[in-house]
Amino acid sequence: MTTVNDHTSASANGTELTDDEIFRAHEGGKLGVDVTAPLDSARDLSIAYTPGVAKVSRAIAADETLADRYTWTQNLVAVVSDGTAVLGLGDIGPRASLPVMEGKSALFKTFAGLNSIPLVLDTTDVDEIVETMVRLRPSFGAVNLEDVAAPRCFELERRLIEALDCPVMHDDQHGTAVVVLAALRNAAKIVGRPMDSMRVVISGAGAAGVACAKILHTAGVGEIVVLDSRGVVHEGRDNLTPIKEELLGYTNPRGITGGLESALDGADVLIGVSAGQIPEELVATMADDAIVFALSNPDPEVHPEVAGRHAAVVATGRSDFPNQINNVLAFPGIFKGALQENSRMITDRMKVAAAEAIAEVVAEELAADKIVPSPLDPRVAPAVISAVAAAARADGVATA
Amino acid sequence: MTTVNDHTSASANGTELTDDEIFRAHEGGKLGVDVTAPLDSARDLSIAYTPGVAKVSRAIAADETLADRYTWTQNLVAVVSDGTAVLGLGDIGPRASLPVMEGKSALFKTFAGLNSIPLVLDTTDVDEIVETMVRLRPSFGAVNLEDVAAPRCFELERRLIEALDCPVMHDDQHGTAVVVLAALRNAAKIVGRPMDSMRVVISGAGAAGVACAKILHTAGVGEIVVLDSRGVVHEGRDNLTPIKEELLGYTNPRGITGGLESALDGADVLIGVSAGQIPEELVATMADDAIVFALSNPDPEVHPEVAGRHAAVVATGRSDFPNQINNVLAFPGIFKGALQENSRMITDRMKVAAAEAIAEVVAEELAADKIVPSPLDPRVAPAVISAVAAAARADGVATA
Repeated sequence: MTTVNDHTSASANGTELTDDEIFRAHEGGKLGVDVTAPLDSARDLSIAYTPGVAKVSRAIAADETLADRYTWTQNLVAVVSDGTAVLGLGDIGPRASLPVMEGKSALFKTFAGLNSIPLVLDTTDVDEIVETMVRLRPSFGAVNLEDVAAPRCFELERRLIEALDCPVMHDDQHGTAVVVLAALRNAAKIVGRPMDSMRVVISGAGAAGVACAKILHTAGVGEIVVLDSRGVVHEGRDNLTPIKEELLGYTNPRGITGGLESALDGADVLIGVSAGQIPEELVATMADDAIVFALSNPDPEVHPEVAGRHAAVVATGRSDFPNQINNVLAFPGIFKGALQENSRMITDRMKVAAAEAIAEVVAEELAADKIVPSPLDPRVAPAVISAVAAAARADGVATA
Repeated sequence: MTTVNDHTSASANGTELTDDEIFRAHEGGKLGVDVTAPLDSARDLSIAYTPGVAKVSRAIAADETLADRYTWTQNLVAVVSDGTAVLGLGDIGPRASLPVMEGKSALFKTFAGLNSIPLVLDTTDVDEIVETMVRLRPSFGAVNLEDVAAPRCFELERRLIEALDCPVMHDDQHGTAVVVLAALRNAAKIVGRPMDSMRVVISGAGAAGVACAKILHTAGVGEIVVLDSRGVVHEGRDNLTPIKEELLGYTNPRGITGGLESALDGADVLIGVSAGQIPEELVATMADDAIVFALSNPDPEVHPEVAGRHAAVVATGRSDFPNQINNVLAFPGIFKGALQENSRMITDRMKVAAAEAIAEVVAEELAADKIVPSPLDPRVAPAVISAVAAAARADGVATA
């Protein structure tokens, strides 16, 4: 039986996963490279290799854009990590991060048919990582940045976007933010309150917290207050990182100071992305019909049963409670939609479009315990792909 | 009909390949990444991704060698190129080289069940390529260097071998050399002459020529003379590259000077790896029962029918003549054997063992027109794998 205190081996259907089962499934890794056309005859060989392949190479040498059509790169995502912020395990290094990256690649394939290769780096230097990816640029079609520690992840993503003429996204930031926005749209419908009048508190100013603040601002949320380990991010604080300075441009309009007590008092929405714990007394001070997304894994900031005593809608990151906020709803479709349109980048509009598409999938069955689709819902990826592709065209970044 | 003048579209079975057929086979590239365990249920997801994967990552963080067992890297070859010497097409760049690298990956999979990923680099700087591969080291288990121009390829391979604790091999050098040695062993049996009494002339001092000289010396060939575009490599020449200086240590013991006329006069073996043409009159001056390997593609240095008038055994690199000297006989098994033993490197003994295994496959059916197996012969890879694995253990480089 799954218990609240045994999260790491909890499975969605309530039967505990055994170590043996987990390790056996990982023997030899989780990925393989396959040949899409079999090489069974001398003729096959002379088409796919010499002498036939020379014609294709010569054609690409004459017109480099043909590589999009005649190589696998336009359907290939590099899943890039330095292993510094892996799941809740922290800085465990590139080798130990590999099973997570392989899992990510498995998700890309399963949900959007996208090929991807884990590229884990034995350096944490932003210049070196950017330089490495620039040199490898002809090898892939897009970069999914994964499990890189904050605040380095912000600079790294920005620099990669500048340096590479292809879609780049740090999924721990934007994948999470997109699904949070989708969930909040639907939660807002449940409580019957428009997002532009809402007061949202984000507890945590790491990768996910900052990206949630950004996308909620873009989507028109009324008031956003962000807290880090030192409390509310406000004008009066010194030694703020550049990314927190940037937050000040669009958060905390009333200049709140202090901690969660002052922020949560009367707030409509709490988004926990902090790995900290939030006491019930504070949740109790929120507005009527409050919305609580307690997304830390494996331990939500406030247990969903506790949050449910004070909030109208509750979501977590876990598969064993309703309303699982899981990035897998977003990233496969976002990358596939972007690659399909040969998009030069992933714009804010593409992210918001992805969120709307995810929210829309459950429009008919909307309920307080069904604000997002299940991660396995087969309707999600196609909806996200077409919404993202349309947004890429609308934004003029599609070149297909 | 295939004609001698229409090589690039020649196929092995004599029916011409059409451009349409070739380009259609390359639509979307030739590779895909597959998931080895399906993600069909919430339970599958929680084993292969969170929360289950955390246990595997934690185990590897505690003991990095477990990455060999629980990730795909120990069966994964990086096929690395800068696109500077692609087939006979020359320096066409990394993007245009990709179809060739994908073909290489397809061969790895088809013949040895090895996964591999093409990594093509937008730099030709040796320092930068080495630095890039060192940073990516945790991502793969071995490096197949491909289509890098000479003489840079020699330094690059040496530097990568020094910098990486895993098998590294420049296939254009050693793959060719291994198959040439295999073919020469069997040709020597046909003409009934021991290799240590043979005089071998190698026309061409690029990647393949230098590696052939080295492996034939290691295997005990009596006398080796190498020629580059300026003629015989000898002590009296100035401005020799370091790699040609090195050749002087074990080639040209009689101090021959001049061109092919002086080298071929009375020689037992001609190995052409030059892309030049060699006139029939010169081949006619070779010893009785001469052996001619004219390996340039698509145009052999001397047409096999012409060579056949003066030589007892003739081989080419082409699939439409007998005795095709094709690297695919060697590299899949060499890498698989090395990876299977978790070998730190690929030693000379492992290469010679591969050659012996390839030669042995056709021992029973040996004939002047059957000195090497067909590239599609399913007996080859298993024989090479076990010979290379045994040699790795004998050399003390196996760590499995």
